[in-house]
Amino acid sequence: MVIDGCPPRVPLSREDIQSELDRRRPGQSEIVTPRDEEDRCEILSGIFEGQTLGTPISVLVRNKDARPEAYNEMAEKYRPSHADYTYEAKYGIRNWQGGGRASARETIGRVAGGAVANRVIAQVVPAYEVVAYVRSIRDIDAPVEPDKVRKSLVEDNIVRAADPEAVEAMVDLVKRMRSEGNSVGGVVECVVRNCPVGIGSPVFGKLDALLASAMMSLPATKGFEVGSGFAGTMLTGREHNDPFHMEGSRVRTSSNRSGGVQGGISNGEDLVFRVAFKPTATIMSSQKTVTSENEETELKGRGRHDPCVLPRAVPIVEAMAHLVLCDQILLQRGQSGVIGDGRKGA
Amino acid sequence: MVIDGCPPRVPLSREDIQSELDRRRPGQSEIVTPRDEEDRCEILSGIFEGQTLGTPISVLVRNKDARPEAYNEMAEKYRPSHADYTYEAKYGIRNWQGGGRASARETIGRVAGGAVANRVIAQVVPAYEVVAYVRSIRDIDAPVEPDKVRKSLVEDNIVRAADPEAVEAMVDLVKRMRSEGNSVGGVVECVVRNCPVGIGSPVFGKLDALLASAMMSLPATKGFEVGSGFAGTMLTGREHNDPFHMEGSRVRTSSNRSGGVQGGISNGEDLVFRVAFKPTATIMSSQKTVTSENEETELKGRGRHDPCVLPRAVPIVEAMAHLVLCDQILLQRGQSGVIGDGRKGA
Amino acid sequence: MVIDGCPPRVPLSREDIQSELDRRRPGQSEIVTPRDEEDRCEILSGIFEGQTLGTPISVLVRNKDARPEAYNEMAEKYRPSHADYTYEAKYGIRNWQGGGRASARETIGRVAGGAVANRVIAQVVPAYEVVAYVRSIRDIDAPVEPDKVRKSLVEDNIVRAADPEAVEAMVDLVKRMRSEGNSVGGVVECVVRNCPVGIGSPVFGKLDALLASAMMSLPATKGFEVGSGFAGTMLTGREHNDPFHMEGSRVRTSSNRSGGVQGGISNGEDLVFRVAFKPTATIMSSQKTVTSENEETELKGRGRHDPCVLPRAVPIVEAMAHLVLCDQILLQRGQSGVIGDGRKGA
Amino acid sequence: MVIDGCPPRVPLSREDIQSELDRRRPGQSEIVTPRDEEDRCEILSGIFEGQTLGTPISVLVRNKDARPEAYNEMAEKYRPSHADYTYEAKYGIRNWQGGGRASARETIGRVAGGAVANRVIAQVVPAYEVVAYVRSIRDIDAPVEPDKVRKSLVEDNIVRAADPEAVEAMVDLVKRMRSEGNSVGGVVECVVRNCPVGIGSPVFGKLDALLASAMMSLPATKGFEVGSGFAGTMLTGREHNDPFHMEGSRVRTSSNRSGGVQGGISNGEDLVFRVAFKPTATIMSSQKTVTSENEETELKGRGRHDPCVLPRAVPIVEAMAHLVLCDQILLQRGQSGVIGDGRKGA
Repeated sequence: MVIDGCPPRVPLSREDIQSELDRRRPGQSEIVTPRDEEDRCEILSGIFEGQTLGTPISVLVRNKDARPEAYNEMAEKYRPSHADYTYEAKYGIRNWQGGGRASARETIGRVAGGAVANRVIAQVVPAYEVVAYVRSIRDIDAPVEPDKVRKSLVEDNIVRAADPEAVEAMVDLVKRMRSEGNSVGGVVECVVRNCPVGIGSPVFGKLDALLASAMMSLPATKGFEVGSGFAGTMLTGREHNDPFHMEGSRVRTSSNRSGGVQGGISNGEDLVFRVAFKPTATIMSSQKTVTSENEETELKGRGRHDPCVLPRAVPIVEAMAHLVLCDQILLQRGQSGVIGDGRKGA
Repeated sequence: MVIDGCPPRVPLSREDIQSELDRRRPGQSEIVTPRDEEDRCEILSGIFEGQTLGTPISVLVRNKDARPEAYNEMAEKYRPSHADYTYEAKYGIRNWQGGGRASARETIGRVAGGAVANRVIAQVVPAYEVVAYVRSIRDIDAPVEPDKVRKSLVEDNIVRAADPEAVEAMVDLVKRMRSEGNSVGGVVECVVRNCPVGIGSPVFGKLDALLASAMMSLPATKGFEVGSGFAGTMLTGREHNDPFHMEGSRVRTSSNRSGGVQGGISNGEDLVFRVAFKPTATIMSSQKTVTSENEETELKGRGRHDPCVLPRAVPIVEAMAHLVLCDQILLQRGQSGVIGDGRKGA
Repeated sequence: MVIDGCPPRVPLSREDIQSELDRRRPGQSEIVTPRDEEDRCEILSGIFEGQTLGTPISVLVRNKDARPEAYNEMAEKYRPSHADYTYEAKYGIRNWQGGGRASARETIGRVAGGAVANRVIAQVVPAYEVVAYVRSIRDIDAPVEPDKVRKSLVEDNIVRAADPEAVEAMVDLVKRMRSEGNSVGGVVECVVRNCPVGIGSPVFGKLDALLASAMMSLPATKGFEVGSGFAGTMLTGREHNDPFHMEGSRVRTSSNRSGGVQGGISNGEDLVFRVAFKPTATIMSSQKTVTSENEETELKGRGRHDPCVLPRAVPIVEAMAHLVLCDQILLQRGQSGVIGDGRKGA
Repeated sequence: MVIDGCPPRVPLSREDIQSELDRRRPGQSEIVTPRDEEDRCEILSGIFEGQTLGTPISVLVRNKDARPEAYNEMAEKYRPSHADYTYEAKYGIRNWQGGGRASARETIGRVAGGAVANRVIAQVVPAYEVVAYVRSIRDIDAPVEPDKVRKSLVEDNIVRAADPEAVEAMVDLVKRMRSEGNSVGGVVECVVRNCPVGIGSPVFGKLDALLASAMMSLPATKGFEVGSGFAGTMLTGREHNDPFHMEGSRVRTSSNRSGGVQGGISNGEDLVFRVAFKPTATIMSSQKTVTSENEETELKGRGRHDPCVLPRAVPIVEAMAHLVLCDQILLQRGQSGVIGDGRKGA
């Protein structure tokens, strides 16, 4: 993982990065893959005496528990709804030993980068905070008020759900799915607090478009929505619009169906968005597929896979939010010289 | 609108662009804004004797029916759920005469660019086709099989719905909303046919992430989903995976919950995605808001606005799909020298 | 010409841009092309009530005095050392009516953009100033101390030389060349004053590399050097190094062979660089060439061309310097939040 | 070093990269730094069974012979004409232990990347070849006809000069400079053979501008020129223009003062350019300087530095040429679908 353009003199330690990698790593609980990867990071450049240098930060995490032989069958057979076929069709070649670039291991780089971005933003906007949580697993919903969720509560259960009451059913569902050689998906919800007003750009760099792109670039994602999202199409304009009012000298909205973004630019309210993760493609059941020799066959997944990616997706979603916001905050500072309400009266 | 990097020797006329602009333009039917803009385009560069030159194509459309005085009230008051406040907070200045950069007029450039991109792709992939249509307006659904929709059917009604049976109810709803000074949103669905296999990139340029970003950069969008989308989270892996089979020498999937993308790369099946558009923010009803002097007030929309953006959004969604796919197809050609199935056996 | 990313609330008028275009325009003196183009600019977007909006600034200049018929012969014949052959080989098509994209008219966009960039920098660094001047035409040198050149002196003669004593010989040379149907080149030198320390980046965005790229992208350029340049290779390290000393609390160098850049980053001294312009390719003499049908033939230039591009190149070189520096200054502000000496003691 | 966008199925081994690193590495002869770094590279990703995968190639080279203590004095004192002061002013922090990002060690990444780019081009254009060589060291010139230089001849002497007769004097000069604690610079000339016609773009991506940027981004460079360069300003247009003629069905120029580029696009002739390298800044003699506490002082270089960077610069210049050309060749393939003469008659 390489980050370029990071501001200088931001306090940053290996532990800042490692602690986020630990939230993502396999084997952390009984409902995720049992792979024993410690995902230990080494900082190769960009940090000096506990501070960023302003020059590229390079971080290396080696795969210690690779088992290429577990993938022998995939050398020939395409896993359904995985990237084996599309990679081979695109490139005419494919590293079948572990999934290569299509392995969810690539999200290590995102989490490491997100940890750096988080520290950068924290220096500029101390109150800044991102909390993601599992909103649903299949049909088990764990509804919460985004503005009330506390990070400690989310980290307190192995599902990373925000509503403790849903946790037991979710754990049971995931365990049952695994025992059946099946898998399950769900929705991660994320709230960004104290994002400064004025972040994002019209047309080409809309904040919600950038978040959509970041989230939809994650493995297994099928949908993204911000604020009222798809449900918002059921409302009329009169019901949907967020009226403005004053809170002291601060412009606020009385509701937040905009999800904190208006015209592609943050309005100072909580950013709230949701990401749909499909059920894990690799399942321990026999499925119809074809080979690279164009012969029809069957394939049964093997190896050590997550029956549900949601708990481990939470820190990844947060990391992507940090990365998007960090870029946009620095761009705003570059273009305008200020961050926050730049109105004459402000 | 400026397009750089367009391949040379692509047949392209002013009419190719104008005909798409005409699908987007105001005043085209009784359920859209009555503004009388002909949106006539002038090609300034990049075309010579009916063909692209390979150098930048510049297209100019002048606003003939601007009425700045209709916006006088907005010089002071922020329209709820519009970009007035966020622009002013971001930039410390705002062109209040018509919405400036936040006006949906900016989508003219997208449609013009999309028309060019469409011609470029058509030269490389003759069977390529994009069809978007209004899938729902508020709670009126017009469900169709994406692989069965024909463009002529969509263009045959003023809503641009794919199911003719829903049209009357939709028209009635929009008219009622307008008469009440209210507005309404909905969902546009889009299918891309004959997209070559192998388009898109792992991690940073996933095809679905790029489509998400393109669609979420459109005015009034709140959500994006591809294939099974949010509903896919209700399925198990066994139900969700798309089995492979052979169709002659071609690898096909028996279902298309992937929406034509696997691992960020097209698999040769139809690309299918949906975009949620919120109800138009500008309504002809009094709403609470504040002024740029931080005083609470009320504002009632005036002017000539769409009570529902969906019918005019259809060509815009198609244009953005063309733009994303054109870029990715050219990138694939640059990196690999071929477009289509690059497997050894293919 | 479109500029994106411009800071908001920068005072900017049409005249700010026009006055620079007037320095570049044809027909301004007896030693440049007599083409009668007024190069009048129209601002299409991005300015409101005399200030930049922060959104894209679009400027249009129409060619009023085009004479396509003067180029009829070039439809078939490639002009030697011009871009006719390379464009046709690259694109398989070519707009032969006036040179198309390879016409020096494209520098209008650079000059207009540079005028904007200059205003942006001036707001952040009021003392900032760029002065370019003709250092030599063929073998007539007009040597000056870069730190002593005043802009008014340069603008005071039609050559834009900094040494008044060389002007007469230069004018005579250019006139003689034109009368002989020949052309001549030379060197433009440029000094940037009060560039803040710390501008530019290591490795990928070195300030001198960016300036080199900007200048070598100008038509007819064949060389770039900064500070001691090629002559610096004749010195030993002991002779070449610039010793540091203190001037009050400011770190200065006692000489400036570095040309204001060390390790790709400005050191606060004057930026000094030189650009070599070849003699104009279009000459009014018969030359050997070939046709697009691969037949050998001869071609004699016609039309209204500069026998020497140097006088008109001066504002273009300045404009490119503004554009490079503006980008880098804003990037520095974005990354570090400050512009200027960021050392702890400073 | 990370390369993204590399075509798939290009044969590539660790040795392909290592052999180029060996040409750059310290300690290879008696006239370069005696540092004992083996610069052994490890390929982390992107290669599978001897071929590129099309996904990012990551290469790691660890510094085995670092001696931070040799830099203790530089923790406080700025080395003249080095980047100590500019980095500290820019970032407010500086890694003084070995030069950090400003160390010429960063060119390892360029050479490794260039080796990959070379293989990519070779697959598309088998006859492609780049040969760089030391053209001069201080006032000792080693003139050659660029089209006659053979790589084996250059590699046959420790200076990497193309004229064997100049080698002895050059070696003597470098040794004398080192014994005097002094340093010396010079000029590297480079010729690119069989670059396809049509590479590079008008205005923004001119091939010569990209080469200029690439070369001027190298440590210690002060100048770049292509073809006739600065000397070309001494010619008239009639003398300077390169007449076209036919060579069979191929368009050729009778001279090559253009240096293989016309209008920013390659014309199929040899690309020829020169790069000026200043004398090494670190010398073993006492020089005036200041400290980070703004106190005037003196500094005498220590450590193991090159008295002349030219011999080791040769593979670096070649690598940068490969990188620029590889990008542009792939872009041309992407935009036009063909590489080479795309004229109708061709």
